[in-house]
Amino acid sequence: LKKVFSFLHSAILASAVHCASSPVKAQTQMTNPPPLVRIAELEIDPVQLIEYRHALSDEIATSIREEPGVLNLYAVSVKDHPNQVKIFELYKDQASYESHLQSPHFKKYKDLTRGMVKSLKLIETTPIMLASK
Amino acid sequence: LKKVFSFLHSAILASAVHCASSPVKAQTQMTNPPPLVRIAELEIDPVQLIEYRHALSDEIATSIREEPGVLNLYAVSVKDHPNQVKIFELYKDQASYESHLQSPHFKKYKDLTRGMVKSLKLIETTPIMLASK
Repeated sequence: LKKVFSFLHSAILASAVHCASSPVKAQTQMTNPPPLVRIAELEIDPVQLIEYRHALSDEIATSIREEPGVLNLYAVSVKDHPNQVKIFELYKDQASYESHLQSPHFKKYKDLTRGMVKSLKLIETTPIMLASK
Repeated sequence: LKKVFSFLHSAILASAVHCASSPVKAQTQMTNPPPLVRIAELEIDPVQLIEYRHALSDEIATSIREEPGVLNLYAVSVKDHPNQVKIFELYKDQASYESHLQSPHFKKYKDLTRGMVKSLKLIETTPIMLASK
């Protein structure tokens, strides 16, 4: 199954997606409202990095498991800079995102990591194309 | 189906993932080698933004459709700054990424957009946790 969220109003592109020559049929999903994508960029206190990574991973696992509107949570660190963390977050819609912020596991994560996070930048985005296998 | 790529060596976390109370069973996939995540940050010439978005979307659709090792390509722009584009790229492994760079559709995209891209920053990453529905 391939999922493509496209936010171009392009008949040419839609046609390209639908006429996939691959044996796996591509699927175009135009959602209304579109999914919400947020990017978080954090700097973590290096001496608390292991604890931070555990708290984050626990929160991610719980959110994906328990919240229907939390679609993807991808956490990475910048290569050779393990205390620079980036999280790519994909929610079904604005309501799912707001519900996530009020969840017990998210609040627990915020409490646990307050003293570990040296800086936090939240980047709101506008999706162009979100395509996955 | 939930997919969780976890790169913590944490028995506690693995247990949390496997003991999902949700009716949808969570799945932990420990891949060896782990997937490759790259983040591209681009600044696009504003007067060529529509053309750029079409070229990018076409390239993404083709890559997801034709390349087994291209797992996710998520392109967004920063809210209220449509010429600032970020692409979160997930490949099965290093070989899949290198194969992607040699693909005809990627080379076509690079040729088409050479005069549209004012700056390009490629960020190599180390995955912490990659979880999705």
